[in-house]
Amino acid sequence: MPQFQIDPRLDADSRLVINLGLCQLRLMDDARWPWLILVPQRPSIVEIFDMTPLDQTMLTFETGLAAKALSEVTGCAKVNIGALGNKVRQFHLHVVARSEGDSNWPNPVWGHGMPEPWRQADRAVFLEKLIGAL
Amino acid sequence: MPQFQIDPRLDADSRLVINLGLCQLRLMDDARWPWLILVPQRPSIVEIFDMTPLDQTMLTFETGLAAKALSEVTGCAKVNIGALGNKVRQFHLHVVARSEGDSNWPNPVWGHGMPEPWRQADRAVFLEKLIGAL
Repeated sequence: MPQFQIDPRLDADSRLVINLGLCQLRLMDDARWPWLILVPQRPSIVEIFDMTPLDQTMLTFETGLAAKALSEVTGCAKVNIGALGNKVRQFHLHVVARSEGDSNWPNPVWGHGMPEPWRQADRAVFLEKLIGAL
Repeated sequence: MPQFQIDPRLDADSRLVINLGLCQLRLMDDARWPWLILVPQRPSIVEIFDMTPLDQTMLTFETGLAAKALSEVTGCAKVNIGALGNKVRQFHLHVVARSEGDSNWPNPVWGHGMPEPWRQADRAVFLEKLIGAL
């Protein structure tokens, strides 16, 4: 039976924050926006309907949890949620804090410009707050 | 108690296909991509965590249903799912069929170019297939 393995590109572009029940919660290494991704730890999932109904419900629960914590920590105007997967097919869900006037506002974060890596100290402060809010 | 009313901009940009249990399933009037939106028929919902857990679960179920039908009807490479809401705050979820080489592939549909309205006959054929697959 195949095992879950994180896609190498997701692994390179983000870092693990915490394991939730179903998903890895990860932080994208792009400080332009507070940007989380959720990756269900199941093999061979591409589309949302590839998951069992129970896993879909778990994903929804964990999405709400991550979105609410991100909203509280950032005070953002809007949380953007998306599962695209046009480049990386392993199912992953983006949860991004958007604020008026941020990079590419009000258009999407995906495919816009080049990533700006987090400074280590800023990331540590952000993740401490995020984990406190989860 | 406030009643659900569809946001005027969503109403102008899309047309009602069918009422599911929780959501209006609507077709965006943009023939560049087969593009559905789901709008939970609840007042004052902006973020996913504004919904009750039961409604969130219903939304997930209806998202899977719409995504699977869209995938079957179009034979697309990837379904893109997103809830952005940076422009229209009433919660709405996009479900879009993407194919290699389509407009702006592999980048997102949102904020790209100008809508190209469906031709009436093409839309009728598409919706008949979609409803058959739901």
